[in-house]
Amino acid sequence: MSQTKTAGPAHQALRARLNEIADLNLSASILSWDMETHMPKGGYATRGEHLATLSRHSHALLTSAETRGLIDAARAEAGDDPDDDAVALAAVADYDATRAAKLPGSFVAERARAQTRAHTDWIEARKTSNFKHFLPALESMFDFARRQADYLGYDDHPYDALLGNYERGMKTRDVAAIFADLRARTLPLVRAIAAHADRVSDACVRGHFSQADQLAFSARLAAAVGYDFERGRIDLSAHPFAINFTRHDVRITTRVYEDFLNPCLFGTLHESGHAMYEQGTALEYVRTPLGRGASLGVHESQSRMWENIVGRSLWFWKRWYPELQQVFPGLATTSLETFYGAINKVSPSLIRVEADEVTYNFHIMLRFEIETGVLEGKLKLADMPEIWRARMQDGLGVTPPDDAQGCLQDIHWSSGMVGYFPTYSLGNLLSAQFFAQAQQEVPGLQAALDRGEYGVLLAWLRERIHHHGRKYPPADLVRRVTGGPISAGPYVDYLWAKFGALYGLSQ
Amino acid sequence: MSQTKTAGPAHQALRARLNEIADLNLSASILSWDMETHMPKGGYATRGEHLATLSRHSHALLTSAETRGLIDAARAEAGDDPDDDAVALAAVADYDATRAAKLPGSFVAERARAQTRAHTDWIEARKTSNFKHFLPALESMFDFARRQADYLGYDDHPYDALLGNYERGMKTRDVAAIFADLRARTLPLVRAIAAHADRVSDACVRGHFSQADQLAFSARLAAAVGYDFERGRIDLSAHPFAINFTRHDVRITTRVYEDFLNPCLFGTLHESGHAMYEQGTALEYVRTPLGRGASLGVHESQSRMWENIVGRSLWFWKRWYPELQQVFPGLATTSLETFYGAINKVSPSLIRVEADEVTYNFHIMLRFEIETGVLEGKLKLADMPEIWRARMQDGLGVTPPDDAQGCLQDIHWSSGMVGYFPTYSLGNLLSAQFFAQAQQEVPGLQAALDRGEYGVLLAWLRERIHHHGRKYPPADLVRRVTGGPISAGPYVDYLWAKFGALYGLSQ
Repeated sequence: MSQTKTAGPAHQALRARLNEIADLNLSASILSWDMETHMPKGGYATRGEHLATLSRHSHALLTSAETRGLIDAARAEAGDDPDDDAVALAAVADYDATRAAKLPGSFVAERARAQTRAHTDWIEARKTSNFKHFLPALESMFDFARRQADYLGYDDHPYDALLGNYERGMKTRDVAAIFADLRARTLPLVRAIAAHADRVSDACVRGHFSQADQLAFSARLAAAVGYDFERGRIDLSAHPFAINFTRHDVRITTRVYEDFLNPCLFGTLHESGHAMYEQGTALEYVRTPLGRGASLGVHESQSRMWENIVGRSLWFWKRWYPELQQVFPGLATTSLETFYGAINKVSPSLIRVEADEVTYNFHIMLRFEIETGVLEGKLKLADMPEIWRARMQDGLGVTPPDDAQGCLQDIHWSSGMVGYFPTYSLGNLLSAQFFAQAQQEVPGLQAALDRGEYGVLLAWLRERIHHHGRKYPPADLVRRVTGGPISAGPYVDYLWAKFGALYGLSQ
Repeated sequence: MSQTKTAGPAHQALRARLNEIADLNLSASILSWDMETHMPKGGYATRGEHLATLSRHSHALLTSAETRGLIDAARAEAGDDPDDDAVALAAVADYDATRAAKLPGSFVAERARAQTRAHTDWIEARKTSNFKHFLPALESMFDFARRQADYLGYDDHPYDALLGNYERGMKTRDVAAIFADLRARTLPLVRAIAAHADRVSDACVRGHFSQADQLAFSARLAAAVGYDFERGRIDLSAHPFAINFTRHDVRITTRVYEDFLNPCLFGTLHESGHAMYEQGTALEYVRTPLGRGASLGVHESQSRMWENIVGRSLWFWKRWYPELQQVFPGLATTSLETFYGAINKVSPSLIRVEADEVTYNFHIMLRFEIETGVLEGKLKLADMPEIWRARMQDGLGVTPPDDAQGCLQDIHWSSGMVGYFPTYSLGNLLSAQFFAQAQQEVPGLQAALDRGEYGVLLAWLRERIHHHGRKYPPADLVRRVTGGPISAGPYVDYLWAKFGALYGLSQ
């Protein structure tokens, strides 16, 4: 497991500095969490300034000559054993500091302030489904992204630089190739299911389910799969998220629709997956840049595994459905099989976060196409509503009636997060790769899961993935765990097996 | 009103620096609020580190040579008109930076560590009512206070330097004189009431009052008196407090005893008073050291005015009691007069935070006497339990059965806060002085209050006090508002009038 062979004085000095930087960043995360969950509306007037100052201080410290000296000394002191924590810590600090140094402090502060404004505009625009109200802020966010790519530098594609914010080492062309493969092998499944859409109904999860009951039951599931509430909590927010301060305090949010059971149940499991990853990082990595997930793609593999591969499986609900029926007596006469169909119904739809496992990646590919298109100058943001409608119609055969259900649905761009979306699909693919690997390696895994014992799976994930935090570059971690690179195969196989059976298809 | 005559380049540069320092401090406040209200238990493992880093960064910035240069330049640029905001900003920044620079970093760090130990010892000592267990830590806290006074410097009395942490410019001898007068004029009232203690009962506010109903009704009252929920919120915490990030986000907490109605009702009004003060500071002062209350004493005048002079008045409950009865039908057969007595019952008691308006100040005077006596070398901390028992018996006629209910009851000394207590009583006195002044100046004030219209009073407070934030030294502010210095007269008159009537006394 993790180990520090060369914890000499240079390592200690670097670690102390990184602790300080981490404190500033984690403080900003606490302010962000508060902004999304509890802050009164008036607080928006000044919260952005606080965040900008924290970000500026963190940036100044990370990019200072003194920190550069500490990093260089620690790299010189450490050997080159990639399993040595001291080597990894210095390497990751070097990666972060080098990238950060390329971004001028004034740029970072200006962007932080613009993000707060953009977020406010987005909330208002989505509420009134008024894309024009968001457009100036959206353009500024993409402009910041483009400038960021220029500052960071890239070989092939400006988008590579942005991907690097979330997925260290990932290339745009690799994503494009993986997505092309995924698309080609999933579209036949979408078409085949469309021809038998009436074989599955989700009527039973539509009705009335009280907020309090949904929240309570979802929290039970989160605790059952292993989310540690001593080091976490669940709140409501407009858009569910998980956020880690340190492994000792990792929080999630969820949302509830009283007329639809799925979002709260599976959103909570999803965010629990993220949170369990953070709660499982090594104790020694606390307040260092190693003390969080390897990348967003790897992160998403954990959330999607618990949400979908576990949470939407028939074996999971064999265990939990009777208890759900107790809480919601309206389900008393609905069979397990009908319920299982309802939580897995494939239905080309408008909202990414509500999309089923089969069509979800099409939402991502649309966003990837827009982001890369805008950066390449081939698409104009002003045309986005139109492009969105056309592509949704073209890919999934549905058309958003308004922009709130179209291009205004996601928070990401309002926070300047361009290059983020592909990690969702990469996570889907990795979730199947990792789960297949666990099945191979852990004797009796399925039997334990059938009994509702999820600790066996969690322990394997902790040992192979969580514990290592950000120690290994994501591609290296994937290779260490699965023996190969990220690929669409296992996920496509998983989809065909599961949905082929559910819809009675022959492949 | 406030104005900036000399907003030249030096003023702008200083303001930008002070904004940055404020952001670090306000971020720490958000982390503290979170720690007291929502943080999962596990978070304690690292929250202290984040706070220490923020505090260190803020202190380093405030005491840096660069900031000193900005202050000196701004002072030189500004004139000497005390009504000029630019003059006040530079003066307050100078005051804060000068004091902060006098305390060596090693002293601050050493004290922070000692405080953590003292706090732990105090908790244990209070739990077991074992004063000896706390004594060494208590002695170290007073020793740190003495050393702090030496670092800060003083003319007359070392306690002056400590008072200055909370009440800029206040002198120990002035506090002593005011307290002597207050004591002499209140003791006869205490004695007179004691002779008729049975005329008032608080039985009707003891019973069962559900937490949800108490919280909802208290929030209604807070909104009614003018606490702006668009820029605030109420949460639960172990000890109620108000905390301001900026005027745009000022939060309060409360606590509920389901068997006793008073704490939640009046605690919420009390904290609302603090919060309305902060919400009313001038917009131009946001993110500067002027953007908060003038002193703890002035702050307490606002909380006590809304809690007591308004919130415990007969006219207030003429308006609200019928609605309270609707919420708590158990009060249906209790008359307004009986309820009014119950929320104002005077009862010499052991615990400061539960004391009534008449006896509260005796608790403060005892602590002031001990603090100054120890600093003068006249009292030994080892003798405190004995002194405490003697003085409680002498002043209020009650004797603590153990030290947990005596000299171990307050958190302040365990946190090194020596010099803080007097501000509570100064606030009581000021609340009456300010209210009397408002009655003189605002035509129809009482009629408006009788109708449940509190905006007239709040508007007056905003204009005369809140708006100015920390611009004027507290004594100057008091003189500007009332035409004279702080004095016991109006508060004593208020007590005699109110409690004389309630207890049927003739003065």
